[in-house]
This record gives sequence, structure tokens and C-alpha cells, in this order.
Amino acid sequence: MSTPLPLGSTIGILGGGQLGRMLSVAASRLGYKSHIFEPGANPPAGQVADQVTTAAYEDEAALIAFAQSVDVITYEFENIPTSALDVLESHRPIRPGREALRVSQDRITEKDFLTNLGLKTAPYAQIDSAEDLHRAMGDIGTPSILKTRRFGYDGKGQVRLSDDSDPSQAMQDVADAPSVLEGFVNFSHEVSVIAARGIGGDVACFDPGENVHKGGILRTTTVPARLPGTLRMDAVLIASQILNALDYVGVMGVELFVTREGLIVNEIAPRVHNSGHWTQNGCAVDQFEQHIRAVTGLPLGDGARHNDVVMENLIGADMDRVPELLTEPHVALHLYGKAEAKPGRKMGHVNRVTPAK
Amino acid sequence: MSTPLPLGSTIGILGGGQLGRMLSVAASRLGYKSHIFEPGANPPAGQVADQVTTAAYEDEAALIAFAQSVDVITYEFENIPTSALDVLESHRPIRPGREALRVSQDRITEKDFLTNLGLKTAPYAQIDSAEDLHRAMGDIGTPSILKTRRFGYDGKGQVRLSDDSDPSQAMQDVADAPSVLEGFVNFSHEVSVIAARGIGGDVACFDPGENVHKGGILRTTTVPARLPGTLRMDAVLIASQILNALDYVGVMGVELFVTREGLIVNEIAPRVHNSGHWTQNGCAVDQFEQHIRAVTGLPLGDGARHNDVVMENLIGADMDRVPELLTEPHVALHLYGKAEAKPGRKMGHVNRVTPAK
Repeated sequence: MSTPLPLGSTIGILGGGQLGRMLSVAASRLGYKSHIFEPGANPPAGQVADQVTTAAYEDEAALIAFAQSVDVITYEFENIPTSALDVLESHRPIRPGREALRVSQDRITEKDFLTNLGLKTAPYAQIDSAEDLHRAMGDIGTPSILKTRRFGYDGKGQVRLSDDSDPSQAMQDVADAPSVLEGFVNFSHEVSVIAARGIGGDVACFDPGENVHKGGILRTTTVPARLPGTLRMDAVLIASQILNALDYVGVMGVELFVTREGLIVNEIAPRVHNSGHWTQNGCAVDQFEQHIRAVTGLPLGDGARHNDVVMENLIGADMDRVPELLTEPHVALHLYGKAEAKPGRKMGHVNRVTPAK
Repeated sequence: MSTPLPLGSTIGILGGGQLGRMLSVAASRLGYKSHIFEPGANPPAGQVADQVTTAAYEDEAALIAFAQSVDVITYEFENIPTSALDVLESHRPIRPGREALRVSQDRITEKDFLTNLGLKTAPYAQIDSAEDLHRAMGDIGTPSILKTRRFGYDGKGQVRLSDDSDPSQAMQDVADAPSVLEGFVNFSHEVSVIAARGIGGDVACFDPGENVHKGGILRTTTVPARLPGTLRMDAVLIASQILNALDYVGVMGVELFVTREGLIVNEIAPRVHNSGHWTQNGCAVDQFEQHIRAVTGLPLGDGARHNDVVMENLIGADMDRVPELLTEPHVALHLYGKAEAKPGRKMGHVNRVTPAK
């Protein structure tokens, strides 16, 4: 066990979006400062961070200066270029570690990893050509979904396939990128577990939340989730198994399908997760603080739920509803400070709170 | 009614301590940016603000540049030099307004104001000399307490007087500053009401908290306070009366003594208040967000209490207890990012949460 970072230390955060923003605020509650690294100008996280570096992930000098100014490095998204990670890691620890990134940056690697742990996933096949896809559509069947192996996010780089889909066209739709074909799973609903693992190997999980997506984007998370006691236990055990196998440090989002045959792992995200935003108004220690605690070597906090919460994302034109949401009782509003409310863009969320039963 | 400040506007905050810090974080949740004005270097609030100006309140050019860079000005402490306020106000609105500052910057003015509203205060007398004090000690009796009229904070500039106290010595102890002698009140406990008033005149109060002080510094606030229903109503009515009389915009802390004869006003603070920190983990909208809503013209939020909370301040060497507090269940930790834990210095607080009954 290493010693926790002393108060006043600086957390380096790769990515300046809403997750980095809420990580920065959580770090401040623990007496830490934040330094955001983000290629885009005026990142939302920069508004509540001690320092901001605006530079590309290819800018080695900027990466080194950033790394040397911080005490530990974490990130808000998993698709960080490997070359940048190599530079950063030679100066400061990166938490969660490289193995978690390696596994989650590639859908095939991730599914192979999960399968090797004995966990269930949707049926899948590696697709490198229209011929592969043609064959796999026969094996796995349709409807099914073609996803690029790398850099998928919020439903981008995905094509739904039906009986009469043309494999060549589908490959064109994903720009002939190395892909994976995933079979559909007959599930009743999706839940996610926000799990954390400390430097000493201790694991803590928040209560599972029930997720509803629309157009590939999370719309709501409801806690508690509909989940029988045995599956609730399974969900926690699955998450723990994944964290331990990766010798993971930090918070991870684990999405699970609930089926008649039990839980199937949809995907994992080695970072704080949209479906964990409810913890901000449901727990004494939220997912953002839990992540900062883990990566700084502090003990994991008490994530016991003291309120029921329904989290709803505010996407694009949902921002028009803000005046009304400001007057609604029991609503905690969290806006991200983004300038433009483009369609599909996550602009904020609300947590609707009721006392836990 | 004026239009609320649009998203992306900047809140100017005078003072870079913990209150400014938590105001800045609350502003971010509403999609606003913050700009801190603070004479001291490396202010805690600067770690989570978009901009920081380090300058003296006598630096007119800095004040003007600051004012012109923001959309509204608020503050975390009431003892802002009048000359600075004059400069700032000619450029941007200051909320809460000048009248609240004028009244609360001087203990005699404040008590006269409260008395004129028909509210009860401790017996008091204006003291400008040892002779005044000698006479007043006879009228008001001892034990009593001599306080400077201006710039008192956390028990500084205060002398307790007993039967055998020497008036000349007491006046020396307050550096012969214009002062007030306050008689002791026979009270069972102190409560405070954190009240807010919007630009349109709407008033909202959080549930009263029960305060325990030690050495003139707040130690704990417990919510709910011990308070019979009739007094609970009185507390809210008193706070509303004060806010309305001042045409107030923002959050105010109103400290009240609970006596057999009802409530007596101890003092008012025209800002977010230490005894309102419990709202961070007890309500969907906390006192900091409520203040930002008020000064930006947004509707006041729902301050209904969904959890019982005990807030405890971490002062000076209390910081040694942080490792233990990090492992205590139901504890939400809030540290202020201050470098040195000097005796008497507020370094952070914890909110101990239990679900509301």
C-alpha cells in the first residue's frame, strides 16, 4: 500500500468535458487541486479547475510539462492515444492503469477478456471484411449490430443489421474499420454497477442503477434498479471480478443486461460513468469523489444510498426545459457549462431525489 | 422582474475563502462561470474558479477591470470597504445590495435596524469611551460583552466583562475602537435560519439548524434544531421580515437565541453562512446554489430537507482527524484547500447524514 497523496496535491485529468469537470469539483472537496489536459479550447472542466493545458495529444512537450506539474494522472475517457500514454507514464502514475485502457479501447479485446473470466457477453465475431461480416451474419444471425472495435462512444460508429442488410454497405458505413458483430440479447432491461477499487485492493460498489437509452444515448438511470436480490449480488460479484482481474484502481462503469438466464455484460468503461451521476444526490460520497479517493490512495468512501434518485440527462434541446426544471421540487440540476446545445450533445443532467425507503 | 442572467454568464465574487469556493462550485452547476477578487495570494476559491484577480480593495483599476469582466457581483464577507463598493457599483449590480452591507457592517446600526423592525435583540449600548462603558456596565449589568462595532468575525475584537472588569482596560483591549456593549441573554440554545430572497421578492427558508459554538467559533450545526412548532414559524417570519425590510437579494444567515420569552436575534450575516453548510448534503438545492439563483435572477430552488444532517467544522488541528473521517460511514467531507492548518482556522467541515424521518 502506498501513502495517500498529501492534501494540496494536484490531480492531472486527461479530458476537459463534464466528467473531468465533476472530477475536478470532487477533488476540491478532498483538498486537492486539478490540472486539465484537453485539446479543445475552453473546456467545461477548465471553469472549475486550478490549471488547464490546451494542447494536442501529439504534443510531447506539453504532455511532459503537464505530467511534471501533477502528482497522479487520471482520465475521463478511455480513447487516449497510446503514444501519449507512453509519454505520460514515464513521468507520473496513470490510474486506472494501462491494462484497463488496453482492454477497453478495443471491443474484441474487451469481450475476449470478459469471456476468459467466465463472464457472459452477447455473441460476437471479429469483422475485418465484408466476407467476415457475411459469414458472421449467418453464424450470429440478425438483428445484430456492427460496431467499430475502437473509439465508439454514445452510439457513434455503429450500424444495425437486419436480414436484408448488405454486408459491403455496412462495412462502408463503418469506413471499413476493424469491427465486431454483436448479436442481439433478449434482455428485459439494462442495469449498471458503478464499482470502485482502491490501491490496496478493496472494492466498493454503489447500488445498481437501471438505465434507459434512446438513440444510443443514456436518457435516465433509476435507483434502485429492478433486480432480484440474487442478481443484485451477481452484479456486484461480476464487477468485483472484473476490477480484480485488471488490478484496477479507480471507478469503473459496468453495464449489464438482465435476462432470464441471468446477467450478461454489455460493456465496461474504465472511468466515472454517466449512469453513476445519481450518486451526487444519493450518497455521502459520490462516484467522482470515490474515483479521486481511489487514484490518490485514500480509503474508499461510504457509497451507501441514502436517497432514491432518478437521473435524467439533458441532451441538446432539452436545455429549453431548464427554466421549468429550476422550479420543479426535489430536482438537483447539474449543468456542464457548454456553450452550444447541439443535437445529441450532453449539456447537463438532473437528479430527482426522494428519501430512501 | 429582471430577466435571469443567461447561461455562461460570469459571477464576480468578492473574497476567495471557503464561502467563495463553494459559491463558485454552485455557480458551475447552474452553468455559470466565476471570477474571484481577493487580495491574498492563492485563494482557496481560485482553485475552482474560471478566473482570479489578485489585487487590493484600494486598487481602483483592478476593481474596474474585474467589474467589467463579470455580469453581477456578490461577496462572501460583509466587511468590504465602502470605497471599493462605490467603484464596483458604478459598473455592475452588487447583490445583496448596499443597504444590507451598511446595516450589517456596524453592530449598532444592525441592532437599531432590528429594534426598529420590532424584533428583540440583546440589551445593548453604544460605547465610545471608558466613561460610556462604565455607565453601560451599570445599566446593562454583567456578565456582558464588549464588541467592536465594525469588522468583528469569529469572536475576534470581543472582550467578556464581569463585575470586576476595568472599563479602561477593556477599551484598551478593543484598541479604543467604537464599540457596543451587549448584555447576556438567558437562552437555552442558538438556532439559525438560512433564508433567501429572490429578485422578485419571493422568500424561501431552509429548516432551522441548531448551533454550538466554542471559543466564539461555530463547531456544529444540527438539523432539525430543537424548536417547538410555534417558534419554528416565528424564526421563519423573523427572517422574512428582515429580508423584506432590506429589499434583500440573496442568502442571509440569521442567528437566533431561543429563550423562554421567544426568539431573540443575535446577529445577521448578508451572505451564505457557516451554519448553512449542512444543506450541501441535506437538500436538492443547497445554500450556495440558492444564493447564486437569487443574485442571477433565477427562481429560488427547493430547499426541502430530505436528510437529517449534523455539520461539524474542522478547525486547525482537527485536520489530524481527516484520515479517520475518511473511513467513517455517512460522512461527507468538504475541505477548503488551505495550505496551513493554523489554530482557529476553518479548514473544512463534514456533514454526517442520516435519512430524514
